[in-house]
Amino acid sequence: MSLAIKDDEIDIVIGAIRSDLTSFMNEWRPMFSRFHIIIVKDPDLKEELKIPEGFNLDVYEKPDIDRVVGSSTSGLFSGYACRYFGYLVSRKKYIISVDDDCLPAQDPKGFLVDAVAQHITNLTTPATPFFFNTLYDPFTEGADFVRGYPFSLRSGVKCAFSSGLWLNLVDHDAPSQALKARQRNSRYVDAVMTVPAGSLVPISGINIAFDREVVGPALVPALKLAGEGKFRWETMEDIWSGLCVKVACDHLGLGVKTGLPYVRRIDRGDPIVSLKKEWEGVKLTEEVVPFFQSVRLSREATTVADCVVEVANAAKERLGSTDPVFARAAKAMLDWVNLWKLVGSISSQSPAV
Amino acid sequence: MSLAIKDDEIDIVIGAIRSDLTSFMNEWRPMFSRFHIIIVKDPDLKEELKIPEGFNLDVYEKPDIDRVVGSSTSGLFSGYACRYFGYLVSRKKYIISVDDDCLPAQDPKGFLVDAVAQHITNLTTPATPFFFNTLYDPFTEGADFVRGYPFSLRSGVKCAFSSGLWLNLVDHDAPSQALKARQRNSRYVDAVMTVPAGSLVPISGINIAFDREVVGPALVPALKLAGEGKFRWETMEDIWSGLCVKVACDHLGLGVKTGLPYVRRIDRGDPIVSLKKEWEGVKLTEEVVPFFQSVRLSREATTVADCVVEVANAAKERLGSTDPVFARAAKAMLDWVNLWKLVGSISSQSPAV
Repeated sequence: MSLAIKDDEIDIVIGAIRSDLTSFMNEWRPMFSRFHIIIVKDPDLKEELKIPEGFNLDVYEKPDIDRVVGSSTSGLFSGYACRYFGYLVSRKKYIISVDDDCLPAQDPKGFLVDAVAQHITNLTTPATPFFFNTLYDPFTEGADFVRGYPFSLRSGVKCAFSSGLWLNLVDHDAPSQALKARQRNSRYVDAVMTVPAGSLVPISGINIAFDREVVGPALVPALKLAGEGKFRWETMEDIWSGLCVKVACDHLGLGVKTGLPYVRRIDRGDPIVSLKKEWEGVKLTEEVVPFFQSVRLSREATTVADCVVEVANAAKERLGSTDPVFARAAKAMLDWVNLWKLVGSISSQSPAV
Repeated sequence: MSLAIKDDEIDIVIGAIRSDLTSFMNEWRPMFSRFHIIIVKDPDLKEELKIPEGFNLDVYEKPDIDRVVGSSTSGLFSGYACRYFGYLVSRKKYIISVDDDCLPAQDPKGFLVDAVAQHITNLTTPATPFFFNTLYDPFTEGADFVRGYPFSLRSGVKCAFSSGLWLNLVDHDAPSQALKARQRNSRYVDAVMTVPAGSLVPISGINIAFDREVVGPALVPALKLAGEGKFRWETMEDIWSGLCVKVACDHLGLGVKTGLPYVRRIDRGDPIVSLKKEWEGVKLTEEVVPFFQSVRLSREATTVADCVVEVANAAKERLGSTDPVFARAAKAMLDWVNLWKLVGSISSQSPAV
């Protein structure tokens, strides 16, 4: 891990969709135990959480959420979106977040992958969004810039976001998961790369890390699908917020990396049941992507919060009439930026609640 | 290999910079022997070529080049540029070209990599330049599109160019090679990916394949550095032509892939000697990249040849006064497009010489 980062600059944020976190926490113990952990319980979850001993952690449940954001806003944080409450109340520079159905992966040599260390390496080495390097991340040990890479671009830019990958259960949408229920990802690609500026990417929230101080406001639980359940393949909140992150980073000259680290996703759930819900994500994606591809931010947008406000206003104007889900997303983004300023401004040292 | 491709639709083009091709050809025999091979001897090379028996090949030497293009133009094809003569006289749909100091690589399991088969797979499966897929090439066996990837973009576009990578000797420029003479690339990344539209990339000519009928005119030996010798790190002709390929493919909605297959580059040469030549590539790269990043092609440019002419005219206008090397490059591009039409129009069935 980079020497420049202290352990107390990192929060690990876990959204608890299931009540029993025993095996999850125990398997992650070697990587997580040095860090402060924030666990946010899905407000829809009735059972008590089971969390093993020996961690430095804070747990937030529905009453805590209501107290901080008000019960009228707390609906934002149901299901997979509960982790965003953790992003909001964290006071650390870096956030690492992993889905509660993921365990540490093994690399091809059989060694356990330290996802925390890899994410921090990704965030603390420069990104290279303005020119593609064929040998992947030039800041990886043993890698380099190839012939023809402009010398003036070799110092790179700040990396604000790191998106890791997953082995075993694929991150499908509901129809793909139903059609290809037995497909598994077993390909371990030993690479990190910067997603080029101007190229949009479907960032999955399964296994991510980011500089909270810089891009936190773009991690927004805005796009909630009707009838969204408790399976990743039914959700799109992370895809929307990932597009916000990418558009803001492109505008501000920040980097987004993808690739290592891998985590291992455990099988669960029945995709056929999800499919019967007539998943509206298929249709919405076709609206969402052209919108983000064409949205242009102004010179006045100099922070990620500014960018989120501009994206929200554009979404309201251009998508608001196509589907009410977008008007709600736009409102949630504006509320979020206000919430971020309000909750974040209490103190940069003391906890928010 | 794709069933849709017949062996006789492929030419393997080798530029002979060294006279003894015995071990090169013998090591590649398992992959090359089914295909027609074009060997173009560097016109500056005095010794007779040594080529082992048992291949279906045509060899072109200086007198052949002079006869086809005239002795005033044949200077285009000296050194690493000799292979471009092979692209010109080929009558096949696909070209695969590997530097004569590269041998077949092994994958991490110790199996020999069939670079020909992988390149053809890359070219005959769609590319996805308009949206980034975090699980790399979705058309690779076992891979797929991830959640959030727009359904309307999943059919992809035609792939016109495949750029492979290399193990062992890194593809450095002259100063990097001098500074890091002992650095070796040993990282085998098991991935193919489409370089996103709008993102430029330094394509190395070490290990490439392309659809000659579609992008052939953009494979142009235009940028010849003063005092360029017989080492890759002294050359930039492939970087320039690679930028032409990428800009044309972006304009026409075609795909460029990079990643697999790997080849193994053999060590040779003394980079310190190259460095003493005051390699002008450092300075030129800083001019070249902003030019290609900002060049805009017109709606009238509907073929790659049209695109090359427009890039040449823009280069003449915008770079011509900064350095005479660019005026020469622009002229070489216009000459090349004419040559391509002239030599290519003799017959699509009979050989050109």
